[in-house]
Amino acid sequence: MLLQNTADAPAAVLTVAGSDSSGGAGIQADLKTFTSLGCYGASVITALTAQNTTGVQAVHPSPPEFVKQQICSVLEDIEIKAIKTGMLYDAETTRTVAATLKAHYGGSLPPLVCDPVCVSTSGHTLLQPDAVDVLISDLFPLSALITPNKSEASLLLARRGLPSRVENVEDMLVASRHLLSLGPRAVLLKGGHITTTIRDVEKLVAAHPHVQVVREGLLGENMEILQIAEQDWTARTLVVDVLQELGAITLFVRPRVDSNSTHGTGCTLSAALACGLGRGMTLQEATRMAAVYTHLGIETAFPIGSGHGPLNYMHPIMMRSVPLPTAGNPHPLTRTLIESTREIWRAYVQHDFVKQLAQGVLPRECFLHFIKQDYLYLRYYARAYGLLAAKSTGFTAIEAATRTIMNIIREVSMHRSYCAQWGITEEELKSTPESPATMAYGAYIIDAGLQGDSSKLIMALAACLLGYGEVGLWLKREAEKPDSWVVIEGNPYRKWIEDYSSEHYQEAVKIGLDTIESLAVADPPSPFRFQEWRDTWERCTRLEKGFWDMSMGLL
Amino acid sequence: MLLQNTADAPAAVLTVAGSDSSGGAGIQADLKTFTSLGCYGASVITALTAQNTTGVQAVHPSPPEFVKQQICSVLEDIEIKAIKTGMLYDAETTRTVAATLKAHYGGSLPPLVCDPVCVSTSGHTLLQPDAVDVLISDLFPLSALITPNKSEASLLLARRGLPSRVENVEDMLVASRHLLSLGPRAVLLKGGHITTTIRDVEKLVAAHPHVQVVREGLLGENMEILQIAEQDWTARTLVVDVLQELGAITLFVRPRVDSNSTHGTGCTLSAALACGLGRGMTLQEATRMAAVYTHLGIETAFPIGSGHGPLNYMHPIMMRSVPLPTAGNPHPLTRTLIESTREIWRAYVQHDFVKQLAQGVLPRECFLHFIKQDYLYLRYYARAYGLLAAKSTGFTAIEAATRTIMNIIREVSMHRSYCAQWGITEEELKSTPESPATMAYGAYIIDAGLQGDSSKLIMALAACLLGYGEVGLWLKREAEKPDSWVVIEGNPYRKWIEDYSSEHYQEAVKIGLDTIESLAVADPPSPFRFQEWRDTWERCTRLEKGFWDMSMGLL
Repeated sequence: MLLQNTADAPAAVLTVAGSDSSGGAGIQADLKTFTSLGCYGASVITALTAQNTTGVQAVHPSPPEFVKQQICSVLEDIEIKAIKTGMLYDAETTRTVAATLKAHYGGSLPPLVCDPVCVSTSGHTLLQPDAVDVLISDLFPLSALITPNKSEASLLLARRGLPSRVENVEDMLVASRHLLSLGPRAVLLKGGHITTTIRDVEKLVAAHPHVQVVREGLLGENMEILQIAEQDWTARTLVVDVLQELGAITLFVRPRVDSNSTHGTGCTLSAALACGLGRGMTLQEATRMAAVYTHLGIETAFPIGSGHGPLNYMHPIMMRSVPLPTAGNPHPLTRTLIESTREIWRAYVQHDFVKQLAQGVLPRECFLHFIKQDYLYLRYYARAYGLLAAKSTGFTAIEAATRTIMNIIREVSMHRSYCAQWGITEEELKSTPESPATMAYGAYIIDAGLQGDSSKLIMALAACLLGYGEVGLWLKREAEKPDSWVVIEGNPYRKWIEDYSSEHYQEAVKIGLDTIESLAVADPPSPFRFQEWRDTWERCTRLEKGFWDMSMGLL
Repeated sequence: MLLQNTADAPAAVLTVAGSDSSGGAGIQADLKTFTSLGCYGASVITALTAQNTTGVQAVHPSPPEFVKQQICSVLEDIEIKAIKTGMLYDAETTRTVAATLKAHYGGSLPPLVCDPVCVSTSGHTLLQPDAVDVLISDLFPLSALITPNKSEASLLLARRGLPSRVENVEDMLVASRHLLSLGPRAVLLKGGHITTTIRDVEKLVAAHPHVQVVREGLLGENMEILQIAEQDWTARTLVVDVLQELGAITLFVRPRVDSNSTHGTGCTLSAALACGLGRGMTLQEATRMAAVYTHLGIETAFPIGSGHGPLNYMHPIMMRSVPLPTAGNPHPLTRTLIESTREIWRAYVQHDFVKQLAQGVLPRECFLHFIKQDYLYLRYYARAYGLLAAKSTGFTAIEAATRTIMNIIREVSMHRSYCAQWGITEEELKSTPESPATMAYGAYIIDAGLQGDSSKLIMALAACLLGYGEVGLWLKREAEKPDSWVVIEGNPYRKWIEDYSSEHYQEAVKIGLDTIESLAVADPPSPFRFQEWRDTWERCTRLEKGFWDMSMGLL
């Protein structure tokens, strides 16, 4: 039943970057991104910054030797699937990072995404000028991908005496080709600071027919119905990122979003890229995923701080309503259901009807009334399992529901012989009118089955199956205690107690438990759906209590 | 439609602690915990460590002045709802942290959880001895809660000349009372290193009747059915945490888990506590939530590293299958459905039937065959909306489904007059046998409605509604182009084109879109459920194409 095991273990990803105290950029943005994308994050800190959404107030670099020590601690212990580097601050740190990675991995690094962070959005220098040379000479050759923005691209190219103009998409093609010549295996030149229209992109593609275009957040063909309801994208300005690989150029095109929540955008993108590559995606797949993740992070951001706020890192995740099953708690859904309806559940399974029955003092007419109504109820109950069979998708589920019907038929024949023993004929059984409690409960489970999917029906059927199992076991345990209040010998209802504590019935309870728990594992409910399950469970628990109230003549 | 706004903004929580390069403890554990529990994390780093699952290899403290600078940068910009402190390393840093918080907040701090980290699990000193005094004198009085473990409690008490024996639960009661006298508003004394049984707890409660007990992961009353299926907890050893508040003592009792994945347990617990308090939980609620979060983190951990591995921080979260709607993409579900069935969707909405119809060259017998079968199909379609009404929970949904039936009835009467115009009597319409394509499609939507809940039925009905809307709009747009291939004047099928591009029909499409998108927002589907929706959508898209294939005589 355990979901968590080595097969599903999250990819471990390492970031080597600065720390942003405000949590919007640097290793903080990286760790939040790793977590939201299901990866395990390790982090080597190259420099501390005192920073918030209004800017960088101070920087405190780590000693390069300590950066090396951190990298070694991580790499010697954890199998890292991808690495990203962000702010490396100075030449010596940059050299150290490159040398340490090279020394550890030799020729075969995991995918390395190098975000050549040079200047913060707020204008703070995050990489000293002489460090740029080291970045190019030492780190680029190790990199699967570098992710410069417009100004970083210009700076890098100018430093190497290459044409450094990056003002439009055409320039981006040229610049990314030159950047590729600096040593990395691929270049993602980010166009966030360049304004483009779909016309520019079309012109460029016409001139360079080998260029591939990936449109994201833009309506594709055959989506007229969405166009009418949305704005006209063709009139909007676009953002284009250029992915230049050896022999392949891809443009990633998406609508520009006006937002103040852009603090840490570059960190987030490169962190998401590392997650994608660490999971075995191609560069194109990873770029698309990372761009969508980052773009939606901006679009769904909350206002935090008074300046350029952080992205919403958590947009792809939601909270589970039911905890994962573990060895310590293999039945988290059932336990949550019982705990969330504790009072009414107790009023049901420790009902006076049950207590009097167990003591053998339950008035005969109460039991007879109950057994007759239970017979009538079982007709609904059997039909409900028929409905469950009809709502099932596979033969296993169809067979399970059908077997239950056969069990109910057997229970019914027990009822008949039981009744005969108490002097009630089959004729009398059949002609007994349904009491309102019986009809309410019976019709409700059929209605639940009509209204919802099979999981709702299973929830509606659970209170009966599990509750009688609970009563049976409870009475059995109580009977086994010395000087027990439960009377077995000479109890006119002994057979009833023995039936529901029998191995046969408890086996059915066990299968029911597994069915319920498997539902929550295979198809984890949203909070809305979980509430629906809980309400159905609670309603049936009340109806069960009502059934015994009725039998006791209270209703 | 946007889910994300200030009302739902996550609580911002600050950690002041050390950095663990391996990502299992320190601010890394804190940030992962904040993210997994839906809080926004900021972090002030007091010291870097080079560390992995086997131990701490080196520590590099931050200058106290820079710690102060980081705290100021965060607090001056971001409204922090709760703070936790972890490793503070030395006396001066501890003094600085306390003084900076006091200076910023004056008397009214947000809830501060002080984890008095002194020694790492691996035995590394993380707080210098003279700093312990400062922790007690300066930080404890600001703290809503301190969270020492057994050895930290002993150390703190011994330092103040108080009885420092913490060997059993009884000792924990005494020790936590003495710790409370040191100044914090509450003490959570963690019993992870003390072995207890349920008998010890029962004895203690008998002797101290005012002590409350919160059992977690232990079966409560009326759960016999779960006991039979699970291990016998009464025989297992337990972990007890003691929460000592002024005038209230609560024991948090849970089964002990044997695990090697305990790196960062204390950090995680105090981080989760800060999240709870930051969200306005009481100390008891927050302690319960944090203990469960941490406990499950250990139980569901993946093997990472060769020593004491980290917890699984991500156990309470799952990935969304459908992105959140945004201004830029208000229809993420519909777009995902169309994009994931792009080929078949195009084959449907740009079917030769449609193209020939738009050109006015569609053979008359094809159109007549289509219009007669469509009439028969609409009977299923109307019934399916009847089923949807029956499956609805509120009057709004019942009314919406019913209005659609009335629209279909109107469409049917249009069909009749249309047919009359083409020389087909109502008699002939009614006596036309259903073609297999009609029956397959019609019966499938009824079956989908029987088998699933209303969302599955809505998915089954969407391809027809949206597809005809798509065709209508596409033809309208094409007709408006100069020298269009679409013929309107004199086209025998003009009315058909005009019907489906009409405002009336497009209004229905818009409502359909909103209904579908609302489903995914109100009840976000699990991957399993999303796949079911997608499969239903795809099947109906194929059936629609099959319907036109049939009309063209291809089937």
